[in-house]
Amino acid sequence: MTYPLPTLVNGRPDALISPADRGLAYGDGVFRTLPVILGNPQVWALHYRKLSEDCSRLNLSCPPASELLNDIQQLYPDHASGVAKIIISRGAGGRGYAISSEMQSTRIVMRTAMPDYPQHYAEAGVQLTLCNLRLAHQPRLAGIKHLNRLENVLARMEWQDPDIFDGVVLDQQGFVIEGTMSNILLRFGFRLLTPDLRRCGVAGVTRDRILQLAPSLGLQAGVADISLDQMMQADEIIICNSLFGAWQATRFNGKTWQPQQLAEQLRYLLQEQHEID
Amino acid sequence: MTYPLPTLVNGRPDALISPADRGLAYGDGVFRTLPVILGNPQVWALHYRKLSEDCSRLNLSCPPASELLNDIQQLYPDHASGVAKIIISRGAGGRGYAISSEMQSTRIVMRTAMPDYPQHYAEAGVQLTLCNLRLAHQPRLAGIKHLNRLENVLARMEWQDPDIFDGVVLDQQGFVIEGTMSNILLRFGFRLLTPDLRRCGVAGVTRDRILQLAPSLGLQAGVADISLDQMMQADEIIICNSLFGAWQATRFNGKTWQPQQLAEQLRYLLQEQHEID
Repeated sequence: MTYPLPTLVNGRPDALISPADRGLAYGDGVFRTLPVILGNPQVWALHYRKLSEDCSRLNLSCPPASELLNDIQQLYPDHASGVAKIIISRGAGGRGYAISSEMQSTRIVMRTAMPDYPQHYAEAGVQLTLCNLRLAHQPRLAGIKHLNRLENVLARMEWQDPDIFDGVVLDQQGFVIEGTMSNILLRFGFRLLTPDLRRCGVAGVTRDRILQLAPSLGLQAGVADISLDQMMQADEIIICNSLFGAWQATRFNGKTWQPQQLAEQLRYLLQEQHEID
Repeated sequence: MTYPLPTLVNGRPDALISPADRGLAYGDGVFRTLPVILGNPQVWALHYRKLSEDCSRLNLSCPPASELLNDIQQLYPDHASGVAKIIISRGAGGRGYAISSEMQSTRIVMRTAMPDYPQHYAEAGVQLTLCNLRLAHQPRLAGIKHLNRLENVLARMEWQDPDIFDGVVLDQQGFVIEGTMSNILLRFGFRLLTPDLRRCGVAGVTRDRILQLAPSLGLQAGVADISLDQMMQADEIIICNSLFGAWQATRFNGKTWQPQQLAEQLRYLLQEQHEID
């Protein structure tokens, strides 16, 4: 991958950021990563709603959907497929944490290539590792996909093995929270549970969609505090994000699970919904 | 204050940042803010040591002191006084949290004006407010002046009153940690205590210096877990940072303290040390 990649900053292709931007100074902003298929951002309504909710929780002004859609169109004049990453920061400001009414959000939209995942991830499942880093409890930031992501960076530093796809992070009480770049769902018989993210973690759009879709697969979906021991007893571990949809994790923490059907069924339903969206 | 201010990015005066910089994407970096007097960065050895330690904890490569000093000289050709803000980010990288060996730190040095604080802050003391936001415990990040500062931003949003200089933040157990932009020291008789920052907070250089200087004022200095109730019983509350040195807080949480001598003595000693440094 080479840089600079095609990027618009506030709609302009000059693609550079002020060093006084509070997104850099304080991680004062939020982001989204979503697939673009043949020029169309996927599940856009949900991504925009989540972006807007995240902005609102930080008292950030969120640009209108039309501006962001227009940016994505500008970046995909070839109607190709790829990824759109959107960053909304609070914009440039003086030294110091105080916010002034003059500050104008910076809107960044980047086009990147779709990650080239091996086909066997979908067929045979992926391997996860258990991270040592424990997520801090901060209810004021929990769930938000904000730019303060040093915990994820530190957790991701814990493994080099390219066969490991993601790392599972627990919170400081030992509850399972998420992968560094995915959400986790666990099937126990007919129940599909995902960790409660009111104290830490990022509540992804695909996690929400799967919770909504579960009943159509005869599964009762819910949110719970889940210990590592409980996770190890799950019949299936599913990880999800907006780019790959849902995969089964078949190796984790010394245990192996047989490949089963749920991840594929979920990918099918997620895809079908895209087409309706 | 107008932007762009004089800034060097990797020593170059073009002063703009790649939108792919991980400082923006993840807050993946550290910073320092220090006074520059007649062109000379103050207490440089300690600031550089702290910068270098903070980089090391994030596995970030820290630029040599000579490069940073050279940047500051370039920004102060007039040998004036002001502030230097240094940001070291992990540099531009692909989407995703993983770090590659190709990444090269981005080094940003900015010149800004010295804040224009009223003289009465030094003479009569300042007013603090108590923030509702509670700091999360993250021992892996505690003490580091990193770029993940949304907690400070949210805490700073809690007051608008210009008579309030800073807000006191507690941790999630109710212990006093710091101000949003200052460290706190509390005098109880002949003891000078400062909150333990092993679980959260930023360990500033001036706090360290004051702990070192305290014995010369006949004070026994130490680090402790301090509750809000204990703080309210202090004989004097001192706040400190690298720009203003030390001030007494004379109003906080419904109580008023008489102006005393410690803050002025500390400013004198801190200043004297500058001249030796």
